[in-house]
This record gives sequence, C-alpha cells and structure tokens, in this order.
Amino acid sequence: MMLLYHLWLSPGCRKVRLVLGEKKLEFEMQIEKIWQRDTEFLALNPEGTVPVLIDEDGSKICGSQVICEYLDEMYGDPLIGTGAVERAEVRRLIQWFDGKFRDEVIRNLVDEKIMKRFLGMGEPNSNAIRAGNHNLRTHLAYIDWLIDRRTWLAGEEMTLADLTAAANLSCVDYLGDVPWQDHPAAKDWYAKIKSRPSFRPLLTDHIPGAPPPRHYADLDF
Amino acid sequence: MMLLYHLWLSPGCRKVRLVLGEKKLEFEMQIEKIWQRDTEFLALNPEGTVPVLIDEDGSKICGSQVICEYLDEMYGDPLIGTGAVERAEVRRLIQWFDGKFRDEVIRNLVDEKIMKRFLGMGEPNSNAIRAGNHNLRTHLAYIDWLIDRRTWLAGEEMTLADLTAAANLSCVDYLGDVPWQDHPAAKDWYAKIKSRPSFRPLLTDHIPGAPPPRHYADLDF
Repeated sequence: MMLLYHLWLSPGCRKVRLVLGEKKLEFEMQIEKIWQRDTEFLALNPEGTVPVLIDEDGSKICGSQVICEYLDEMYGDPLIGTGAVERAEVRRLIQWFDGKFRDEVIRNLVDEKIMKRFLGMGEPNSNAIRAGNHNLRTHLAYIDWLIDRRTWLAGEEMTLADLTAAANLSCVDYLGDVPWQDHPAAKDWYAKIKSRPSFRPLLTDHIPGAPPPRHYADLDF
Repeated sequence: MMLLYHLWLSPGCRKVRLVLGEKKLEFEMQIEKIWQRDTEFLALNPEGTVPVLIDEDGSKICGSQVICEYLDEMYGDPLIGTGAVERAEVRRLIQWFDGKFRDEVIRNLVDEKIMKRFLGMGEPNSNAIRAGNHNLRTHLAYIDWLIDRRTWLAGEEMTLADLTAAANLSCVDYLGDVPWQDHPAAKDWYAKIKSRPSFRPLLTDHIPGAPPPRHYADLDF
C-alpha cells in the first residue's frame, strides 16, 4: 500500500490526500514532525518537507505538486485537464493558491496561529493576522469572480485547481477564519467540494489541543 | 511570433528563455515593469507577475513553470523526461531551485542588491546578504553532490532541472557572487550549460546602471 508522510494543517499534504481520494487509491498516513529534522526522513527527502509519497513499488516522490503530477500521470482520469492550454489554466490557478495564497494567507493565519504554538515560538503576530484576514477576502472575491463565470475554478470540469484551492482554504476554515457569509459564490463552490467523498477524511482531522470550530465538519455550514 | 513579457534578472523569465531556445522557437521579448501595476498587463495576468507568454495563436500562459510545462507539451523533445518517476525527480529539483533556492538565495542576494535599488527601497540589508552567501554555498555543495553521482542534475539527460538551476544561478553570477573556485563539479556542470546556444542570449543581457562582472559572459570563467 502507498504511504504518505504528512502534517495535519499542511495545504500541500491535504491536496495530495484529496487527489489520492479522487483516484480511489488506498494509502496509509504517517505524521512527520519535520522540525525534528529526522535523519532517516532527510534521506528520503533532502528538502526535509512534507508531503512525501512512497508508492507501492518503493518510488519516493517528494513535494505536493510533484506528487499530484505523478499521480495524474500514473493513475486514473486526469485531474489537470486534457489540452495544453486548458492544463496551463489549471496549473496557473494551482500556482496561485500554492504560491500567492500560501504567502498572503496561510503564512499569516495558519503558521501564526498553529505552527508558532506547536513550535513554542510565542504568540501570533497581530499585524500578520490582520494582513492574513484582509488578503483572505481578496482571494475569496477572486473565487467569487471565477465561479460567476465558470462552473469550477478552471472551467467546466472539476480539476486539481479546485482541489488545491479547497485544500488551502480548508486549513483556514479549521481555524474558523473564513467569512463565508460575505462570499456566497465561493461558499457554494466550497460546499460542492466539501461534500465529495475524497474530502470526508479531512473533516475528521483533529489536531490535539486545537479542535476545529463546529461548522468545520458540517456540510451545511 | 511568440511574445514573452519578462524582466532581466528574473530566474523564472530566464528559465523560459532557455526552454524557448532549446526548442528553437522564435520569440520577441518585452520588458514589463511589474511594480507599475499596469492595468492592461494585469488583465493578461491578474497575479501581476512575469513571465507571461503569448503564443502565436493568442493563448496567454502565465508563470514560469506553467509556461515550461506548456511548451514541453506543445513543442519539440521533452525536457521534463519521459517516465513518471523520472519526471518526478526532474520536477523535485525544479521545485528545489524555484522554491528553496529562490527563498534562501535569490531573495537575499538579487532582490536585496538589484530590486531594492530599482525600486528605491534603500541599501541592501547586510544580514540578508550574509545569509544569502552562506545558503548559496550549501546549494552549490548539493549540486557538487548530484554531479558527482550523475551526468546532469536529474540523471543522464539534460533536463528542465538543469535549465532551472542554471537560470537561477545565472542571476547570482551576474552579481559576481558565485564562489565557483570552491565548487569544481558545480562549475564544470555550469560551464556545460553556459556553452549551449540557448544560453547565449542571457550572456548579452546588460542591466542599465548595473553591468555584470567580466567573467559573466566568459565561457572559460
């Protein structure tokens, strides 16, 4: 069986779990406390980051987008689209959420509120929290704008762009920080993703000492 | 003809230029001063970043790795390898240089020394410069390690991993900051890339007010 090294509120790890779920691939998970810099794990992935996937034949695949491209080439129906231009639009949005959203929102909210606490790095910086919440609204408005024009983020089909955006947003939603009521189009889109079977395992995640808000696992939020 | 919106010392733009050169595709270039937040350019790429490629049929492709994946799907021999596991190793190293190297080296050296000056943001931060130079040596040691074991970074073939690493290093080399003499394996590898026809246009880049050191364009450096 495949093995996924992961961390709970890592958007990249959640994205890989969604892809594995969409492709109906069975896998086991192992938490890797990357800040301990375990030498065996560093031999697997010299970058020292999660996710890392060990495929059934022993292949070691490192990094969230790398793993998703690998899984899309190896298993099941394509999640990155078919034509080259369509695939470029899917990948543009993946890069948007894995890059811009991570820098502007995840680092300011998830890293400040959760990672700092786990690593004993003190209280969250209130300027970062304020910036993160402000940026989050801009990104939700962009999702509203896309969903007003398309069925899914990259077009008429659900793709890895949707899974990437949802994986990122789910980490912020775990903190209870997403103002869904102000973004009805984004909310409808997220509700559709949230009700997919691949999403269910993410809704049962419980980080010791940091439980999610009540609406987090609720499909009618 | 294709049109590439770019900036001089952007590793992502240089990487796309190398790929276009390797695939012998003709293109024009236009400098986009992204800090001016031009509305026409933002309509092309809402992220407001370069590179952006306009293909001959008018397709707009945004983002360096997205453009490279697109070009590899559309034109010429594959630069990302053939088998899924091999492609994962190429993409792992691309992510290493576009992610880790950018964060640890490019931001500390190129952004501090060049971008700050252009944007009138004051003197380079000496702590950043020190950290960038230290991190650069770690990355050069990693290239040495790989090249001691493989002909090219990802294996026996020249791939987009090599072009990505070289595009990033070329920006630091423009500043004269690479201690090549301490890393002979990395130097031999870079000399091989530097002598490819696709690399030649990069060696003629001259940023007004910030000329490169003498060895920058020298194939025997």
